[in-house]
Amino acid sequence: MNKVYIGIDLGGTNIKIGCFDSSLKLIRKISVPTDVDMGPKAMIDKIAETIKKLLAEAKLSLRNVTAIGLGTPGPAKYKQGILIAMANFPKFKNVPICKMLTAKLDKPIIFDNDANVACWGEYAAGAAKGVKDIVFFTLGTGIGGGILSDGRLIQGAGGNAAELGHMIIYPDGRLCGCGQRGCAEAYASAAQTAKRATEAIEAGRKSSLKKVLKTKGQITSKDVYEHLAKGDKLAKEITDETAKVLAILSINMLHATEPKKIIFSGGMINAGNLLLERIKYYFNQYIWKLKFEPVEICFATLGEDAGITGAAALAQYNYQQKNLIL
Amino acid sequence: MNKVYIGIDLGGTNIKIGCFDSSLKLIRKISVPTDVDMGPKAMIDKIAETIKKLLAEAKLSLRNVTAIGLGTPGPAKYKQGILIAMANFPKFKNVPICKMLTAKLDKPIIFDNDANVACWGEYAAGAAKGVKDIVFFTLGTGIGGGILSDGRLIQGAGGNAAELGHMIIYPDGRLCGCGQRGCAEAYASAAQTAKRATEAIEAGRKSSLKKVLKTKGQITSKDVYEHLAKGDKLAKEITDETAKVLAILSINMLHATEPKKIIFSGGMINAGNLLLERIKYYFNQYIWKLKFEPVEICFATLGEDAGITGAAALAQYNYQQKNLIL
Repeated sequence: MNKVYIGIDLGGTNIKIGCFDSSLKLIRKISVPTDVDMGPKAMIDKIAETIKKLLAEAKLSLRNVTAIGLGTPGPAKYKQGILIAMANFPKFKNVPICKMLTAKLDKPIIFDNDANVACWGEYAAGAAKGVKDIVFFTLGTGIGGGILSDGRLIQGAGGNAAELGHMIIYPDGRLCGCGQRGCAEAYASAAQTAKRATEAIEAGRKSSLKKVLKTKGQITSKDVYEHLAKGDKLAKEITDETAKVLAILSINMLHATEPKKIIFSGGMINAGNLLLERIKYYFNQYIWKLKFEPVEICFATLGEDAGITGAAALAQYNYQQKNLIL
Repeated sequence: MNKVYIGIDLGGTNIKIGCFDSSLKLIRKISVPTDVDMGPKAMIDKIAETIKKLLAEAKLSLRNVTAIGLGTPGPAKYKQGILIAMANFPKFKNVPICKMLTAKLDKPIIFDNDANVACWGEYAAGAAKGVKDIVFFTLGTGIGGGILSDGRLIQGAGGNAAELGHMIIYPDGRLCGCGQRGCAEAYASAAQTAKRATEAIEAGRKSSLKKVLKTKGQITSKDVYEHLAKGDKLAKEITDETAKVLAILSINMLHATEPKKIIFSGGMINAGNLLLERIKYYFNQYIWKLKFEPVEICFATLGEDAGITGAAALAQYNYQQKNLIL
């Protein structure tokens, strides 16, 4: 088989790698743990070795590979192929990750932000297949974003566009990890949804979640949605605030880049319709009445494979556009 | 002279038309009043006749014209060349304005939103000359916007992107004309800046503006800035709220499309540094501390000519890209 594309999703916990055929069908994937003590060289060795193993398992070799896509969290100089830093990995500082990978593998590579890559995945093969104007949110520890406008990812002047979780929803509101106050992320990420529930219980609010906090020592957003499903009043309030913030964020992005689809992804979408319907409810409550907005709000469909699929798809697209780093 | 470009800025009060050479130097311009009773045919006749007059005054003729650019307020289907409606002009409904103009003038035409056109003007020949990533605001009766990303205007799925004045700054805040609450426009447009001052005085606040309201029956944003310069405390508070809203709007757009320059235009920028410095102050107060943001916040430089310059520049660009409506 020729024209195989490799997608790499490099995260803080795992390196996920997939190989895809030219119609972006997943041939085989693999996930290996990372280790915070790893330096850049060890990490690159691990990635290269894992790619070779994956290809061998699929009865393929590097000769079959056309291009490689790589997604990582920022900050990075994506166009130059340099990873500036990696949270929790102290040995990573201004790593020429693309150059190091191509030295090992001798393949052209495309490099972008993990949220951009996942956004591209949903465009290439997921919830927004073929839809050229989309806004994409990841709801995890933080809130990441990706913007596709007329089929192009918005990169920004310094490659750091679409930091959508740091759009301010409530001026002078909750303190965010970034130093701003009132960011969407300070309310509506999975971590902050759980934290707001914890704070309410510690402030004396009654809730069936109190027992969870006592037993497990902490509450996760999954707990919040489980107790919401069981009718807990506090869980309902917490969910409503999350949904309202995500709705206003969606309205603001609608007025900015006017997407046709707004897509939410990340662990928190496991809450399902209980969350999605509330986001839509608040969107309809808060959106203008000047004209009907035909935008569709939905959940991502690629799940954990969004990163590897998007990276491979971006490699294919940029290979065709002759726009790769070698 | 060959390769002359015509820029048309069609507004509610005037039709402004300029003719430009291929280096976008203004050769000559003209402004004629519109009349709300005008129907589409009368308006097109007026535009065509004024263009011919303008060219004759410049000792040129239609033969010298390469292409025409047209900017109007929305709503419109810009790509199809159809003006859906025009505020205060009841006879305008789904007008195929480009087709009608080319029938009269037999020239290729490009059509876009007036704020987008002015944004392109500042990029082509004004405050952001050559800067490919910008966010542009017009501060008038409302707040309009334009977004340039990697040298392309963001159009959105339906051609209605960059309605930046309707991004929500204060959820559940002041009612906006659009039906939403807490829009930037509901606080920081020229009209609403004046209105907030009026409301404060009517609620009993002391201010040197009280006399203006009594004498003239109304306050304009110009009055607010004049009394700010004289040290009036209320004028200072009103200006600070305007500046804070514009700063948060700027921060939110920085996190969305990451511009290198953020440009304010419109009548209100006559307030000068008294306003600009306060916007910068609040921007620095409210922006994250994760990394330094090298974005420049500044005022537009083309003034009243932004519309005609941008329209002509957009005509030239799209002519070169072979992307015009004929």
